[in-house]
Amino acid sequence: MTSSSATLETVRALLRADPQSEAELEQLGLEAQLLPVGELVYLVETRPATEAALLFRVLDKAEALAVFEALPPQHQAELISALRTPQVADIIGDLDPDDRASLFDELPASVAERLMHGLDADERAMTTAVLGYPRHAIGRYMSPEVLTLHPEHTVGEALAHVRAHAEEPETIYLLPVVDASRILLGVIGLRRLLVADEDARVGDLAHLAVHAAATDDREDAARRFFAAKLLAMPIVDGEGRLVGIVTVDDAVDILEQENTEDSARTSGSEPLPRSYLATPILRIVRSRIVWLLVLAVSAILTVQVLEVFEDRLDQVVILALFIPLLTGTGGNTGNQAATTVTRALAVGEVRVRDLPRVVWRELRVGAMLGAVLGSLGFVVAGLVYGIAIGTVMGLTLLSICTMAAIVGGLMPLVAKKVGADPAVFSNPFISTFCDATGLIIYFTIATAVLGL
Amino acid sequence: MTSSSATLETVRALLRADPQSEAELEQLGLEAQLLPVGELVYLVETRPATEAALLFRVLDKAEALAVFEALPPQHQAELISALRTPQVADIIGDLDPDDRASLFDELPASVAERLMHGLDADERAMTTAVLGYPRHAIGRYMSPEVLTLHPEHTVGEALAHVRAHAEEPETIYLLPVVDASRILLGVIGLRRLLVADEDARVGDLAHLAVHAAATDDREDAARRFFAAKLLAMPIVDGEGRLVGIVTVDDAVDILEQENTEDSARTSGSEPLPRSYLATPILRIVRSRIVWLLVLAVSAILTVQVLEVFEDRLDQVVILALFIPLLTGTGGNTGNQAATTVTRALAVGEVRVRDLPRVVWRELRVGAMLGAVLGSLGFVVAGLVYGIAIGTVMGLTLLSICTMAAIVGGLMPLVAKKVGADPAVFSNPFISTFCDATGLIIYFTIATAVLGL
Repeated sequence: MTSSSATLETVRALLRADPQSEAELEQLGLEAQLLPVGELVYLVETRPATEAALLFRVLDKAEALAVFEALPPQHQAELISALRTPQVADIIGDLDPDDRASLFDELPASVAERLMHGLDADERAMTTAVLGYPRHAIGRYMSPEVLTLHPEHTVGEALAHVRAHAEEPETIYLLPVVDASRILLGVIGLRRLLVADEDARVGDLAHLAVHAAATDDREDAARRFFAAKLLAMPIVDGEGRLVGIVTVDDAVDILEQENTEDSARTSGSEPLPRSYLATPILRIVRSRIVWLLVLAVSAILTVQVLEVFEDRLDQVVILALFIPLLTGTGGNTGNQAATTVTRALAVGEVRVRDLPRVVWRELRVGAMLGAVLGSLGFVVAGLVYGIAIGTVMGLTLLSICTMAAIVGGLMPLVAKKVGADPAVFSNPFISTFCDATGLIIYFTIATAVLGL
Repeated sequence: MTSSSATLETVRALLRADPQSEAELEQLGLEAQLLPVGELVYLVETRPATEAALLFRVLDKAEALAVFEALPPQHQAELISALRTPQVADIIGDLDPDDRASLFDELPASVAERLMHGLDADERAMTTAVLGYPRHAIGRYMSPEVLTLHPEHTVGEALAHVRAHAEEPETIYLLPVVDASRILLGVIGLRRLLVADEDARVGDLAHLAVHAAATDDREDAARRFFAAKLLAMPIVDGEGRLVGIVTVDDAVDILEQENTEDSARTSGSEPLPRSYLATPILRIVRSRIVWLLVLAVSAILTVQVLEVFEDRLDQVVILALFIPLLTGTGGNTGNQAATTVTRALAVGEVRVRDLPRVVWRELRVGAMLGAVLGSLGFVVAGLVYGIAIGTVMGLTLLSICTMAAIVGGLMPLVAKKVGADPAVFSNPFISTFCDATGLIIYFTIATAVLGL
């Protein structure tokens, strides 16, 4: 660990020095070879593209491919623009067709076309097939190279077939069984094949496949993948014909991307296309500014609400002291509910039709939270500022918590219902909404209790 | 889809009717059999424990096991308390040792002990081994049943060995190679074994294993697992001896649990032990109330800050109108930064030693965001309330955005540095901190500009 971290520092220093001579590059190569792939990926992800390209040139081919495969597609695309060497064609040819398709998506059309021409006919056909599906379809993540069996095969024949073709496909551990027109009949695991009687028929051993249509949403398909604890999932077209297979690494990538997107959206920013440290500052600003502007403009609502109550504020300035505390508490309560429900929706624990149950639950949770905070507010504010202010604080906290929990629980479901990402009614949005509503509640209660 | 959703409604109605007679139970069983495992899991997760137990009793054994395995451990434990039938012993015996250990963790000690006695000696020994590791150690998730090869085996012998023992272990697709004292020498994939020459030595074909120590943190180990695109990862003890193997489904479970925990913590609530709809209301209240109280008490700080400036508020009540807008914007900016950095830390894109770079990036991002929002604030507030108020708004927005972005980027790194979960300085915490700091900035600027 310590030695690896020292090597990391050395490599970083060498990169920064922008080595040009043969000797310098050789030293860089020697040092870089000492680093595990994970550290190399980290370096490539966190250094500027020019330094990353430099590092890339001194790696041997196997290592370069391993590092390249671990990068997100947009990052791969940048690296390719920075590299522009024969190395590129080699690496592109060795990628799986699904990974290659994701990369081509990110490249300028002219570059993608040039690279596409460098591929042999088979690889090109497979890449084109994968590129034909919409952006978030599971078909984009499949490998069209599938080792299939026929139901009439005996186990002995099937095993011989597998051994003869084990090198090419992305997986041989799950084998789809198809008929003469490639209709998916079922699947059989390699383990089952290994222990079965040599003369048994494949058709008798196969079982129904958990599969997906190529146009299915990638997140739904990935969740189904893991719920069924698969190692691979066959992908079919509209007629039930096998067109590809999705493997664990693809499904994990999808899940991680969705989690990163949800996490960004929940806080009201757009997901970054590459790693945080490697994203240009202006790109980060862009990912945040739109939401901040929208939210700031919505927050003008709170100014208007307060303007309505300005004369009451003028009479009792003390009311202004509690504004941040009250709006903050409402926002927090709403965010807790929204985050829980968004996550529950993402992992499939809650569905849109559970809306009434969610509202009823959040109503009770919010009221209980409000009762606890309200009692506390009543006692503390009552002791310091007198019974009237205490009463206002207690009642306001009770009402705001109840309202905020319901709004927070409801928003993700409403978003899902209208077909938007549940994370899109992000926490800041809920905070802003609760701020304005909370202020109205506050001044209404204050007006009534204080007789303003 | 439609028919399955109609069946789901039927089964739900049947469950609610609390069937007792043989005929009713039989009808429930027939309808339930029409549902895919995923829908059954959803039903068990979202209905009260008594209804879930009822549903469980009418499933056939294979289906019951599949559903049971898909439930989180704490949920399994509740179900077992509700079942108390001979069915339980059967299911427990059929679980993998690692899943069984997670379940026993959640059961009352007396129940776990009774169930442990029902296991045969082998299964009991393996469960005890897994239970010996700390709660978040990867050892808890391994299966001690591993199919191993010896370096002196020929490929032919190794394949015969695999075929003879293919039924028992959790995986046969990655085969650890060990010496006579079980020291891990390397691994070999089944695919490689299948295509190799029958007479080749296993020792010559094996390659270095990406592995973990049993006491390693589960999240670190799972991330290493996916970074290396493994199907299984050998687990060793302090002396490098093989003690078990972790498979994809375990690693995915760990990642999903960590993501759920992070998502809950980010919004300032404790992760729920079971699915949202199945968690009792009081348990949800408990998961949220502590943070809400802590935050509300911290928010008293904002009241105190405002008290300091009370006379100025009294002079210029208009200043109160912008409080929610300003604190809200600060909170949003801080949360965007905190969420991005927390996620980047979780997936390994940022490390603690990157702290100076993160601060420098957030300083620039925050200043740019502040420049945009501040200009807008200057123009809008200036037009409506005059140039002086406009200046105050513009300068305050600029300062608050810069401060909030730095604080938001810094907090997760500080948490990680002191050994806490980076998600623990949750977004609400950052909001509260930014609220108080923002108010001080606001009134300081207002005092200077307005000459109060």
